[in-house]
Amino acid sequence: MFSGALQDLVEELASLPGVGPKGASRIAFHVLNAPAEEVDRLVGALSAVKEKVRLCERCFNVAEAERCAVCLDPRRDQTVICVVEEPKDVMAVERTREYHGLYHVLGGAISPIRGIGPDQLRIRELLGRLGAEPVAEVILATDPNIEGEATATYLARALRTLEVPVTRLASGLPVGGDLEYADEVTLSRALEGRRTL
Amino acid sequence: MFSGALQDLVEELASLPGVGPKGASRIAFHVLNAPAEEVDRLVGALSAVKEKVRLCERCFNVAEAERCAVCLDPRRDQTVICVVEEPKDVMAVERTREYHGLYHVLGGAISPIRGIGPDQLRIRELLGRLGAEPVAEVILATDPNIEGEATATYLARALRTLEVPVTRLASGLPVGGDLEYADEVTLSRALEGRRTL
Repeated sequence: MFSGALQDLVEELASLPGVGPKGASRIAFHVLNAPAEEVDRLVGALSAVKEKVRLCERCFNVAEAERCAVCLDPRRDQTVICVVEEPKDVMAVERTREYHGLYHVLGGAISPIRGIGPDQLRIRELLGRLGAEPVAEVILATDPNIEGEATATYLARALRTLEVPVTRLASGLPVGGDLEYADEVTLSRALEGRRTL
Repeated sequence: MFSGALQDLVEELASLPGVGPKGASRIAFHVLNAPAEEVDRLVGALSAVKEKVRLCERCFNVAEAERCAVCLDPRRDQTVICVVEEPKDVMAVERTREYHGLYHVLGGAISPIRGIGPDQLRIRELLGRLGAEPVAEVILATDPNIEGEATATYLARALRTLEVPVTRLASGLPVGGDLEYADEVTLSRALEGRRTL
């Protein structure tokens, strides 16, 4: 039999993505035994995200001001826009430390099953930016799955008239992977995209 | 590049047990997109656990008053004490709905490697209860591992002079398991503890 407060916490934690009932009770007991300052930091961080974080008015990445840290950084190349589905994809590209341009976050991908069409994505805003900003390349970095590919195909067509070069991230074998275990589609793409050495 | 608040939250979440960096960023984005009321409930539950939950003065189970819900329940059998390592073990036994006695939470198990001896556990408090309460049976429900077994053996000896019957949870094959995959120690215990049908 458990105290009400602990049971409430277990239930709240279990509703988070990727946290099951056992994980929730493990975290709840950790919280119970953790120093008060640690729990205060977690509570503060949760509240701060809801209070401070909003979307960048230009690229719709997460931001704590009108524009996000990428848009506010004058060292970023203002002539390249990398189009992604979600802010977490911005995080993934930033982790490579190889990209120095701007972003545009669509807010999802075209998915007829989920009832998401081009109008629900921030495509109009992207076209607006291409009209106003000195863009020399648009990199389509939507997910390499059915919805992401459909979105990239749609965007490539929509951007054709603007005469701005449009590229797509390469598909192929993951580095460190094993040819033997690659699925057929990935292996076909890797063959298709083979490069001269 | 991420906003400071979101990055702070990812780091706080990643320090929780069982939450890795990917899980932390998944939860952080869930929090970002979740309705404010849901996040308020989580924040409230975290704070409430730290404010309200303490240990029962009698059995050291988690409680929101001087005594825990089990000790406060007059329908519980006051003559049986089930000795466990941690409050989460109370939760596990309660889930069976088969036990109706009281508990005593030791606060761990004897572990020379981690420098935990009998003096660091609430064994003195258990002996005190056995002197003061009308106990007819002590069930040793410490974990079926080396530390738990050592603790049970120590307790069995320490309680010998008190002339109160001491029992230990049965070891054997887990229900729904597969004989073929049982480890040797478990299978030996299952043989040792075999019962006439």
